Amino acid sequence: MTEPDRKHRLLVASNRGPVTFRVADGGEFVARRGGGGLVTALGGLARLHQVTWVSHALGEGDVAMRDSVGGVAFEEHARGGGSYDLRIVGTPDLTYDRYYHELANPLLWFLQHRLYGFGWDPTITRRTHAAWGAYRDVNARIADALIEELEQAQQAQPDDELPFVMVHDYHLFLVPGMLRERAPEGAERPFVQFFLHIPWPDPGAWRALPRSWAKEVCESLLACEIVGFQTPRDAENFLRTVHHFLGASVEFRTGTVRYMGAITRVRTYPISVAVDEFEEHAQSATVRRLRDRISAMRPAGRDGGGQLIVRVDRTDPSKNIVRGFKAYALLLEEHPELHGEVSMFCQLDPSRQDIAEYVDYLAQVKQAANEVNHRFATTDWMPLHVNLDSNFQAGVAAYCEYDVLFVNPVADGMNLVSKEGPLVNERDGAVVLSDQAGSFNELGPYVVPANPFDIAQQADAMLDALRMPAHARAERAERMRRQVREHDVRDWMDAQLADISALQAGEPMVAR
Amino acid sequence: MTEPDRKHRLLVASNRGPVTFRVADGGEFVARRGGGGLVTALGGLARLHQVTWVSHALGEGDVAMRDSVGGVAFEEHARGGGSYDLRIVGTPDLTYDRYYHELANPLLWFLQHRLYGFGWDPTITRRTHAAWGAYRDVNARIADALIEELEQAQQAQPDDELPFVMVHDYHLFLVPGMLRERAPEGAERPFVQFFLHIPWPDPGAWRALPRSWAKEVCESLLACEIVGFQTPRDAENFLRTVHHFLGASVEFRTGTVRYMGAITRVRTYPISVAVDEFEEHAQSATVRRLRDRISAMRPAGRDGGGQLIVRVDRTDPSKNIVRGFKAYALLLEEHPELHGEVSMFCQLDPSRQDIAEYVDYLAQVKQAANEVNHRFATTDWMPLHVNLDSNFQAGVAAYCEYDVLFVNPVADGMNLVSKEGPLVNERDGAVVLSDQAGSFNELGPYVVPANPFDIAQQADAMLDALRMPAHARAERAERMRRQVREHDVRDWMDAQLADISALQAGEPMVAR
Repeated sequence: MTEPDRKHRLLVASNRGPVTFRVADGGEFVARRGGGGLVTALGGLARLHQVTWVSHALGEGDVAMRDSVGGVAFEEHARGGGSYDLRIVGTPDLTYDRYYHELANPLLWFLQHRLYGFGWDPTITRRTHAAWGAYRDVNARIADALIEELEQAQQAQPDDELPFVMVHDYHLFLVPGMLRERAPEGAERPFVQFFLHIPWPDPGAWRALPRSWAKEVCESLLACEIVGFQTPRDAENFLRTVHHFLGASVEFRTGTVRYMGAITRVRTYPISVAVDEFEEHAQSATVRRLRDRISAMRPAGRDGGGQLIVRVDRTDPSKNIVRGFKAYALLLEEHPELHGEVSMFCQLDPSRQDIAEYVDYLAQVKQAANEVNHRFATTDWMPLHVNLDSNFQAGVAAYCEYDVLFVNPVADGMNLVSKEGPLVNERDGAVVLSDQAGSFNELGPYVVPANPFDIAQQADAMLDALRMPAHARAERAERMRRQVREHDVRDWMDAQLADISALQAGEPMVAR
Repeated sequence: MTEPDRKHRLLVASNRGPVTFRVADGGEFVARRGGGGLVTALGGLARLHQVTWVSHALGEGDVAMRDSVGGVAFEEHARGGGSYDLRIVGTPDLTYDRYYHELANPLLWFLQHRLYGFGWDPTITRRTHAAWGAYRDVNARIADALIEELEQAQQAQPDDELPFVMVHDYHLFLVPGMLRERAPEGAERPFVQFFLHIPWPDPGAWRALPRSWAKEVCESLLACEIVGFQTPRDAENFLRTVHHFLGASVEFRTGTVRYMGAITRVRTYPISVAVDEFEEHAQSATVRRLRDRISAMRPAGRDGGGQLIVRVDRTDPSKNIVRGFKAYALLLEEHPELHGEVSMFCQLDPSRQDIAEYVDYLAQVKQAANEVNHRFATTDWMPLHVNLDSNFQAGVAAYCEYDVLFVNPVADGMNLVSKEGPLVNERDGAVVLSDQAGSFNELGPYVVPANPFDIAQQADAMLDALRMPAHARAERAERMRRQVREHDVRDWMDAQLADISALQAGEPMVAR
């Protein structure tokens, strides 16, 4: 992308901010930069534009930092140069806990990933209704902070256009609607864009919520000028959902919604990896050391052709780890010739262990893993190695070393594992990828497709990947690498900025 | 409806036939007529048209009957006069078992009612693939029997149009496609209609099946001239599904699918009750006796205004019995003034106890029921009475006696309880009805709506129903009764016949 011809003013809102703070022994604040593409992409903006990031305090250090600056925005330096303003929003712990651990997770996360079997879950109780109140409360606090920032920006540069606002993800569904409702009488309306990182399911899934909540979410999002999704399927489901709950007039072909006199554009911006930064990670000394350890898990094999299957995931039910282990067990059961020839290494981050469903799932993951080794391990061959911790660098090392990367989520907004792996893998590794991952849209032609519900098919897919001829592997690996390199996360952000500029200027938009 | 001006020849296919046979001690066959609207509706056709019914043997008596006639069709007398031919199809037990107890239930039933939490279920295994083979096998046997009947009909009356074929429900999804594929070279193509009694979910649900199965189901149904559903939502989901899996060209406004040079019309025919017959049941001596017993469960109440809440269901997770008990417990917890004033009677048919999921669910139902009585029962008040058996007449008696009928399925093709109850209730009873039941489309304006996931809202809905003023109850009860009376199951069948005739004659169809 070319450098933009003017400096934007930009407000970003997300639950988690780009840095978290802790108070060191000497009393000074130590900032820890978060990882992930969003931080990098938005960090990259800081050099070019005037960015204020509004997010919620995530721990005591954040709260202390917030109090020390009196709750207003303060300057932070971005990785790669430049700086941005950060504003930390606080909420009483009990309210935040209900918002985050009851409403956003598991309820919205489970619902949007279709993890609920409707005969049993979800069950909405008076407590859930209270949690919805907490969800609204936190959303209102973020919205109020944004409104204050908008007012200050207008006072500072009254002749300029207002900053535009980018709101992120399912934690903050109600913010766009609240920006409109809670703005002072007569205030200029900002341009608001929302981006959803996780799947948007069909209207039938949303009916598990009280109807008034579903309508509130839909109405809020239709207060945006642009709503962005990872894939066309999510965008289509959104269009159907706002039609179902609000009777909004939708045009599928152009991704346009008309409701209450306003127009919302619905677009697709598939998120990606911060390529340079990620390649740099892969070259770090720690990763190189970890690669040796992981590489040692690859069995020698009879003709020196032993292979290592790798998976890297959070232990989230949507990631489908248990079915994956069952598929691997089936592969080993049906193909004794693979014993001693193949091993699997899993770098699993024990996710959200403050939520009961995740504690249960982790126990199931452990049990399924034990079953594999119990059935098949021999004195000199360990079929399955599981590393249960949040070791980001071990994941990167595993990416470098895989012969087969196994990615089988039942639902996934994008799935960055399937992009990060091919980017840094050095063995022309093959990829088995679920057709339910958002990334399947981009990588489908180069992977062995997996049906995440079908362990028989997943076993067959693993076998196909293990047996793929060298030239086919090399070609596909190269194509995947190119696809990821050419679609950096900065392109994801640039496409959104370009659409915002185009829409403001009345020109055709870039994305569909 | 007026009498049709010509006698149709008609082939009906369903898994379960209108009668089952047992061999009596003397060696003779004793026929037992099945209940249910489909049997009545089609039985009524027997007087007017020439009907052959092809269905599967359901037990040893059916097999013996089939063998005794050499596997061909034989004459049976219909209730209400006339007769039809019946042809019983057999399959080896193991094959039938896989088809019925693995593929149709729980897999298709659970999938179509959204009972699976995708993080855990379904899991497709090699065994499930074998069960799909069995499903195909049984479908092929039904299709072959239909083809033979078509050939015989053509030989008997070569100048007449071929009989048209009506195929019923999710057990026989593949029959329409097989009729086309397996027909002898050069055979005339019959007119085929399919009717689905249960919900058709969105494309995302079907993706839990191997893609080739989902495509096979879709292609088979598009071999029909007409595909009928209970509600517009099902029809819309079907249109989206065939577009998703086959890329078929669909027109939502007119319910038209174009695929491989053929046109399929998609229509809505909400099924209903056999009114006269059902009203007759309600007057039987047995029902009257049972009413006394059920009426005795109604507490006297302080001012003689005690009320009885009734539910009548199979113990199927889709029926949502456990959440219903939790909602009732919440009502009693929040409204101590109702203690001794209200009781609930549940007539529950323990359903499908040869399937593990149903055994588990029944245990959960029992536990939830016990909890209610354990918490609230007193020496002279029993809050919850549960009758766990398949006593049809006790259900009818309960319909007559309810003050509030509680119907809260998480998904239901139609839900006949919500139509049968108001038809025969004699106390101007109010109805609490889930907005996820197909019948909500017709009865919505007269019921207290329930969100089946929200036990807080369900408790509130029960309270609203209990407190509804007498005149409002009476008026709503009367409107519901009229709605059901004026939409007899014969109208359901007549609408389908009229559409078939209209389509054959090139005239506009009746249903949408």
